[in-house]
Amino acid sequence: MSAQAKPSSTQRLEQALAAIDQAGDEGRRTFTRLYTSDARAAAAAADARSRAGRCFGPMDGRLVSIKDLFDVAGEPTTAGSVILQDAAPATRDATVVRRLRAAGAVIVGKTNMTEFAFSGVGINPHYGTPGNSRDAARIPGGSSSGAGVSVARNFVEIAIGSDTGGSVRIPAALNGIVGFKPTQARVPREGAFPLSYSLDTIGPLCHNVADALAADAMLSGVDLEPGATRSVPGLRLGIPRGLMFTEAQTEVLEAFDRAMALLGGAGARLSDEAMDDLLGEPFRLQEQGTLAAAEAASIHQHLLKEHPEAYDPIVLGRIRHGETIGAARYITMVQARTQLLRHIDARLAGFDALVLPTVPLLAPRIDALSEERAFLRTNGLLLRNPSVFNFFDLPALSLPAPTGTGLPVGLMLVGRRGADRDLLAIGSAIESVLTSANR
Amino acid sequence: MSAQAKPSSTQRLEQALAAIDQAGDEGRRTFTRLYTSDARAAAAAADARSRAGRCFGPMDGRLVSIKDLFDVAGEPTTAGSVILQDAAPATRDATVVRRLRAAGAVIVGKTNMTEFAFSGVGINPHYGTPGNSRDAARIPGGSSSGAGVSVARNFVEIAIGSDTGGSVRIPAALNGIVGFKPTQARVPREGAFPLSYSLDTIGPLCHNVADALAADAMLSGVDLEPGATRSVPGLRLGIPRGLMFTEAQTEVLEAFDRAMALLGGAGARLSDEAMDDLLGEPFRLQEQGTLAAAEAASIHQHLLKEHPEAYDPIVLGRIRHGETIGAARYITMVQARTQLLRHIDARLAGFDALVLPTVPLLAPRIDALSEERAFLRTNGLLLRNPSVFNFFDLPALSLPAPTGTGLPVGLMLVGRRGADRDLLAIGSAIESVLTSANR
Repeated sequence: MSAQAKPSSTQRLEQALAAIDQAGDEGRRTFTRLYTSDARAAAAAADARSRAGRCFGPMDGRLVSIKDLFDVAGEPTTAGSVILQDAAPATRDATVVRRLRAAGAVIVGKTNMTEFAFSGVGINPHYGTPGNSRDAARIPGGSSSGAGVSVARNFVEIAIGSDTGGSVRIPAALNGIVGFKPTQARVPREGAFPLSYSLDTIGPLCHNVADALAADAMLSGVDLEPGATRSVPGLRLGIPRGLMFTEAQTEVLEAFDRAMALLGGAGARLSDEAMDDLLGEPFRLQEQGTLAAAEAASIHQHLLKEHPEAYDPIVLGRIRHGETIGAARYITMVQARTQLLRHIDARLAGFDALVLPTVPLLAPRIDALSEERAFLRTNGLLLRNPSVFNFFDLPALSLPAPTGTGLPVGLMLVGRRGADRDLLAIGSAIESVLTSANR
Repeated sequence: MSAQAKPSSTQRLEQALAAIDQAGDEGRRTFTRLYTSDARAAAAAADARSRAGRCFGPMDGRLVSIKDLFDVAGEPTTAGSVILQDAAPATRDATVVRRLRAAGAVIVGKTNMTEFAFSGVGINPHYGTPGNSRDAARIPGGSSSGAGVSVARNFVEIAIGSDTGGSVRIPAALNGIVGFKPTQARVPREGAFPLSYSLDTIGPLCHNVADALAADAMLSGVDLEPGATRSVPGLRLGIPRGLMFTEAQTEVLEAFDRAMALLGGAGARLSDEAMDDLLGEPFRLQEQGTLAAAEAASIHQHLLKEHPEAYDPIVLGRIRHGETIGAARYITMVQARTQLLRHIDARLAGFDALVLPTVPLLAPRIDALSEERAFLRTNGLLLRNPSVFNFFDLPALSLPAPTGTGLPVGLMLVGRRGADRDLLAIGSAIESVLTSANR
């Protein structure tokens, strides 16, 4: 190909397959399954459309991975477990998989994940743990661990993950890429193995906000018309100082402050906001057991009876805790949440977005988390900030903060419920300011 | 007034107040509170509008009662209990109360009910039990006991009740009047003391379907335009023979058969349908505890701790049972219900309505239910048929079947979810056939 010509889908796919192969064990730990032959056919079809001038849209011919919890017709959906390896094959593709195919995307493979998506660390005792893309001795973040690594290592261009308490945004933050969690109702969840009916969302991990926009349009089925653009001057950004900034590593706080200085310099109106009365509520309400644990206990009731020994012990412990929650307590939490959604909506009315660190930590070393206590403490810290916005069902976007050569730090933008496209437009404007600084 | 003139709202109100007064203890057991002076003012205002030719619509000047569980600003909402007599006064009217006032209705009083609406019998140990309008030694049906009696004894023209498992339709059936339970989303529940978040509905009890239509339009806020009318010839009515017809008294089955003969003779297409696979599901699913009990246990958690001794022991026992239900079990029921709603929708596609006995019994004598076992058995039988359609969230209308001089028998019509207005139109056509036979 000439130096100018944009590489074809087939060319990019072959490069990606070669990179996966060269990555050896890391490649095998990133994907639980590769669709090499189907992907080649899809790439060839996209290239043929391109030559004929019949592009299906911005996802046509793009290299994509899907998390191991999405149904693909004809294969069991394992969701990072060994228990489901012998499950009945799915009879049809998950809705998002059908949408990917209809959009012309090239599905390269299924990505590894925390078993049943029930932790933010990304360690998987069954299929191995893909190493962080910047330092393979460090955790990738989870639960969409392989999704994050597959994008950051250029095995694919866009990964489709799920996010119940941060599972898209945590691996995005720890691998230095973009991750988007939509408002829950935006993307249909049919054919995705559930963790929590109340909190599960489906969203993309990718290199930039433009790709997040394209993926969101495809996932949501909302046309990607030329939407309203946003610019940084005058943008009202609330910084929820307090709980969300505690126990943060110095590197994270410094990267956050640098990003705020850049945005302030570009004309954003930044203000510190005391919001712990509201942002602390999810923790107070769920102190004796979480919505996700109760719902997981219902989802897993049969598997738990039949194969408790086949679970990751840490995941098992978390689900077992869900079994202790009473219906009355659960119903009280659901009702209280409904009230709290109204309160946060009122509180956010004066802002274009909230901005805070996605997670308070740099990616820890895998070997530092072998003891359960250290694992659970780190897991709790990783999930803390992102999970608040699953609870409040608000769209949230994690962008890489400028860190030079250091480990990645994620900057989380939080928008208003249902205003997903607007948040992405804001994210695009902010990304421009941050990346120009990174050059 | 002349023989021809329609009596004014004030004239009808004074007649009603006199009737309530003459009824003595029965009047006092029917209402927990009378708004004599406010009602007189509202009637006078309606009459003034009428004289000026400025009618607010079909509810203007109508005499109405509201169940004891609706908030009226400035008074505690007792919901048939003594525990809440000293509760904080409501700060605003319930939505349906506001809509009643805005429609010009004359709110005569608040009606007695089963404590916290948690039984279908209508016995209340605190405020007394209003006797059945045909025979005061018999139960009125519940939980909207006073609502049914207030209409049947012409104390008011329309009563607003709530229905979680039959609480509008049971007293309608046992008192020989019309009762309508809408699809849950049709009428806002703000300001109504809840029993079950999943199942509570608000609907009218009245003398005829025309009044049910007027009340439904007011309650739902959906304009009462000249809607499509329906006629009996060609109407496809499914009769779900099986479970719903078991343990029925002969008089009920005979009245049902007579009504079917009349409808068949008028050209309705009647067919027996085997639907127990679906109609039995709510019982199988809730065998170890009901959605309503779990939700009541959440709603009552604080009151239960503080004043267990002040509850009706039978209501207390039912709520206490809800405390034993686990969150996982509850969530499984909620999810299974979602699936079952789809199944019933598919099954109903071939019918205009289902038709069955509202309850399998004539009103039993109050003194026959003094033992808890007899009470619970009768309560279960009264709730059995109506509660199925709260579970399936379908609109359901109880009409009086022609019975000559016997105790009343209710005929229940069940429509498609959200097609409430259509069910009322069908009910109006069926009512014409049945009442012409009764003359």
